[in-house]
Amino acid sequence: MTQNFSIDKSMDILVPLAKKECIETPWDRYEKMQPQCGFGELGVCCRICWKGPCRIDPFGKGADRGICGATAEVIVARNLIRMQAAGAASHSEHGRHIALAMEHLSKHGLEAYSIKDETKLMAVASTLGVETEGRSTQEIAHDVAQTSLNDYMNQDNSKGCSWFTKTLPAKRVQKLKELGVMPHNIDATISNIMARSHVGCDSDHVNLLLGGIRGALADYTGMVLATELSDIMFGTPQPVITKANLGVLKENAVNIALHGHNPLLSEVVCDMAIKLNEEAIAAGATEGINVVGVCCTGNEVMLRRGIPLATNYLSQDIAIMTGAIDSMVVDVQCIMPSIASVGACFHTEIITTMPDNKITGTRHIEFSEEEALEKATEIVRLSIEAYKRRDPERVNIPQVKETAIVGFSKEAIVSALAAVNPEEPLKPLIDAIVSGDIKGVALFAGCNNVRVKQDNAYMTVVKELLAQNVLVLATGCGAGAFAKNGMMTQEASKEFCGESLLKILTLVGEAAGLEGPLPPVLHMGSCVDNSRAALVASALAEALDVDLSDLPIVASAPELMSEKAVAIGSWAVALGFPTHVGVMPQITGAPGVVKVLTEDAKELFGGYFIPEEAPVEAANKLYQAILEKRQRLGI
Amino acid sequence: MTQNFSIDKSMDILVPLAKKECIETPWDRYEKMQPQCGFGELGVCCRICWKGPCRIDPFGKGADRGICGATAEVIVARNLIRMQAAGAASHSEHGRHIALAMEHLSKHGLEAYSIKDETKLMAVASTLGVETEGRSTQEIAHDVAQTSLNDYMNQDNSKGCSWFTKTLPAKRVQKLKELGVMPHNIDATISNIMARSHVGCDSDHVNLLLGGIRGALADYTGMVLATELSDIMFGTPQPVITKANLGVLKENAVNIALHGHNPLLSEVVCDMAIKLNEEAIAAGATEGINVVGVCCTGNEVMLRRGIPLATNYLSQDIAIMTGAIDSMVVDVQCIMPSIASVGACFHTEIITTMPDNKITGTRHIEFSEEEALEKATEIVRLSIEAYKRRDPERVNIPQVKETAIVGFSKEAIVSALAAVNPEEPLKPLIDAIVSGDIKGVALFAGCNNVRVKQDNAYMTVVKELLAQNVLVLATGCGAGAFAKNGMMTQEASKEFCGESLLKILTLVGEAAGLEGPLPPVLHMGSCVDNSRAALVASALAEALDVDLSDLPIVASAPELMSEKAVAIGSWAVALGFPTHVGVMPQITGAPGVVKVLTEDAKELFGGYFIPEEAPVEAANKLYQAILEKRQRLGI
Repeated sequence: MTQNFSIDKSMDILVPLAKKECIETPWDRYEKMQPQCGFGELGVCCRICWKGPCRIDPFGKGADRGICGATAEVIVARNLIRMQAAGAASHSEHGRHIALAMEHLSKHGLEAYSIKDETKLMAVASTLGVETEGRSTQEIAHDVAQTSLNDYMNQDNSKGCSWFTKTLPAKRVQKLKELGVMPHNIDATISNIMARSHVGCDSDHVNLLLGGIRGALADYTGMVLATELSDIMFGTPQPVITKANLGVLKENAVNIALHGHNPLLSEVVCDMAIKLNEEAIAAGATEGINVVGVCCTGNEVMLRRGIPLATNYLSQDIAIMTGAIDSMVVDVQCIMPSIASVGACFHTEIITTMPDNKITGTRHIEFSEEEALEKATEIVRLSIEAYKRRDPERVNIPQVKETAIVGFSKEAIVSALAAVNPEEPLKPLIDAIVSGDIKGVALFAGCNNVRVKQDNAYMTVVKELLAQNVLVLATGCGAGAFAKNGMMTQEASKEFCGESLLKILTLVGEAAGLEGPLPPVLHMGSCVDNSRAALVASALAEALDVDLSDLPIVASAPELMSEKAVAIGSWAVALGFPTHVGVMPQITGAPGVVKVLTEDAKELFGGYFIPEEAPVEAANKLYQAILEKRQRLGI
Repeated sequence: MTQNFSIDKSMDILVPLAKKECIETPWDRYEKMQPQCGFGELGVCCRICWKGPCRIDPFGKGADRGICGATAEVIVARNLIRMQAAGAASHSEHGRHIALAMEHLSKHGLEAYSIKDETKLMAVASTLGVETEGRSTQEIAHDVAQTSLNDYMNQDNSKGCSWFTKTLPAKRVQKLKELGVMPHNIDATISNIMARSHVGCDSDHVNLLLGGIRGALADYTGMVLATELSDIMFGTPQPVITKANLGVLKENAVNIALHGHNPLLSEVVCDMAIKLNEEAIAAGATEGINVVGVCCTGNEVMLRRGIPLATNYLSQDIAIMTGAIDSMVVDVQCIMPSIASVGACFHTEIITTMPDNKITGTRHIEFSEEEALEKATEIVRLSIEAYKRRDPERVNIPQVKETAIVGFSKEAIVSALAAVNPEEPLKPLIDAIVSGDIKGVALFAGCNNVRVKQDNAYMTVVKELLAQNVLVLATGCGAGAFAKNGMMTQEASKEFCGESLLKILTLVGEAAGLEGPLPPVLHMGSCVDNSRAALVASALAEALDVDLSDLPIVASAPELMSEKAVAIGSWAVALGFPTHVGVMPQITGAPGVVKVLTEDAKELFGGYFIPEEAPVEAANKLYQAILEKRQRLGI
């Protein structure tokens, strides 16, 4: 059944049920959307002004320019950089939200929040150059928050954002500055992209693309600060064993699905769920409250609390088909509005919480840091009420779940390595890379996309690379795919890793007390946590005194769809990583743009895009890219 | 010949020439683009993620939701608010550029620039609450610049932008704050729009549209600061008599066409053109250097220096067909990339100047405030060199030009009125409005759009309103249309104004020493100068102690096309003005969005959109809107 659209076994059970009950799935909507607009797919449709819409005839017989004279190159480049700007805006709004909360916490206190990880606060303060000597936690936190906010405020474009210049290797920062793509202010960079892509502005595709790369690096800046400040406020992930896939829902519990991205909401709901557990039991839910995660909020609470992950992006509304989700509580990003209509077919409360992210037809409980406890209490109690309305006849929880060892922040990885070599924790990893026991590192990130079979490309590409002894990191819905499909177990390491990789994973795993290997895929967090991988890479580059682009590191987004993913992929390229995209980017109507991103970028940045829809071929190309980097390094 | 696409007489001469020489015009490209995409025209095409493109079937037979579940309402609203964000970004980047230059000037000095209007500096300082007592011009200018930049920096969203809260009537600020649409930071508001319109975020069209309105008010903020700081640095426009249309080009002069928006470039080129005049004469141009303007840079230098205006948006590349433009010097916005190919058919140097606005295939001379004199010298000398290559056989200057009395800044209007009543300058205007001698005020703004006959709707609507004794203000390419087509002469007042309006225009004109009436259309400046009209309206509202929405003021953008125009129209609505758009907004695929903008907005803001493609009908609707406002005011 699922062979056409997903490899997730729980879909085998729920999708037929959806058909039976006439509830629309994303795949139904995809089918209804066929054929999709070819101009849009090529990127040559321009809707930037109301003289248009314009589109370039890819066959060279019709219009070869827009009404203003814009070529396909210009149109495609403008469309692409606006995606990068939107991606940067999304991650950076998330980051700003955390920074403002931390500033508030440090100045006036916030009942629901605290500085949970003082060690991380000190480390971050040191990175940012914030004075710590003889100062209180509050004072230091305040200055860290202020320094972060200043990355949205600085008006001097000769000075790079602090989080950009201070978390990346100096060589890379210098190179990016020389190329004119250093972000000096996250918001200003976004505005710049929107302005230069206005009608009658930048009409040179190379110049536009460089502007987009600066936006992508602003995305990195917003992400790294979001992640690092979240760790300070909510704790830095450490390895934890949990479960993933829809089998984590419990028939006899109030199931609250947390969905979205920002831990400011989800952490407090988790706290209140624990506090109000007895109320759930009193309401008849013998197993109390069962909080599960969806998408990247799922990853956030999974890594910090071991909360099980229910599902990833593409199956979010189908999860409601289990009839066992009493509330789906959402904040921002990647929340399908379809959850409103599917929720309405069940007893499920769909609760939106953020003032700028509502869904017509759902309940809105406006969350704020100041009233976090009250709002979270209200949300949990509404979930308990909903549970009372649940129809047991309609409960259909697929008995599909996999163990997942997760929680591999940079700190967790370093600490695991330190169990092998306390003096120089990175040395075992560097030695393994140099010796070839580990051939290279691959970061898997990105979304699901209905254009390809759900989770399939992740699983196929990763197995090929593991067999070639490539160390694998994962984030976001990619990590979700691996967790759901059994790639975060010790058994999977034994089954899929090449011999020398398994040896290293076992050495580190055992030294770290896991009584066996690390899992083959190291779950680093949500999509905003891709910065963790960049920080690991930066630490390696600095230890070796090389640039990021010298390292045998690649990235892969086999099923990307969102503008955030476009931005992440673009900064991965700018940092020097060959980056696979498994869904054809909507740029192919402009050969010049394609050339810049797949060829010229290699000269400029060391990184470049590898568009490849066939998973095995993609794995080959990634592996070849690793070998090429190794060769250049002379290892 | 032109009856189908323009009423500008110079097009009668040049368009046939373009056909003969096989040079493509915007109208050719428009024809080639037919049929334009109906989904795009309705606004129901979504290209926000790479699961798509998606589009809603307007006939209800195909897809009624995007793959993520987004409805037509959500898709249309997201597309629209991104246009508002791009418009806001454009004006605000312009504003930031001026503010940074002023800050630099006040701190370190800048050879090419000075504070030209100290009176305005003092007035602005007083508006913004900057201390002036006992301080130097530099110190005051510095603080004014800093206060302006702070509107891009403030992270406290309970505090509105200074330029927003301090230039609009308190009643309106309060209302907009209560509606949650007060911008607290221009850039952050733009980022917010980009983030909330990301896939899986805001999925409620009303909420989205309110976010867009906040973006439009950020656009206002960026505009008003751009205009007011420009006046400080380059002088506040005062009435000046000049000429408009392509007949302003001179056969025996080096013709430099300044095109774009920002006076930082154009002002210095004007200065250097005067200095290097002898070099042009020495090169054989007996009439020396003739600087002319195109689009809004044209309006900027026209109002401040009396430089003649060559043409407006839609005929910018056709202007090159005269064979007499030696260089077209551009900065940002509304510059058709087609000028590169048309320029290449002639000797014309197309010179781009801004790092973020290049055009493939043209010469780029990177301008900066620090090297302004050198760069402007280089530009002027290149123009002289180009003149030497000019082919006299191909020179074809249409002998079409009209006198234009322009330069009606708020200050100029107040000063003209003060000639009638020095104690209470606004009183004659208020009395005339109350008595009905002036029925109301209409602001004409916006672009040209190839979808309607160039300049035609402007001329048709304005004549109807003038006959009904409506006072007319104009900016941007609208003002360009009126200037080119003879609506800025004293004769035109006599020909087109209703009796009582003519009486007032004559009273004020004669008192101001014009020996006759003011022109029927008061040219207030470039499109960024629409804020001037808002300031006049605010002064009237405060004098009468009413809200802006109580005043019988309307706005009209008969030929809009750009995202900037969308943003301007939106803030006009938010300020309380019924606002006509003469090109169908690409939102009609979403009845809910249409209802919010054309009906509900009236309740919320007092202003609302009046989409109407038929010019006479549009004039009727605008006049009815004025009468309705008068009735409510009881006058």
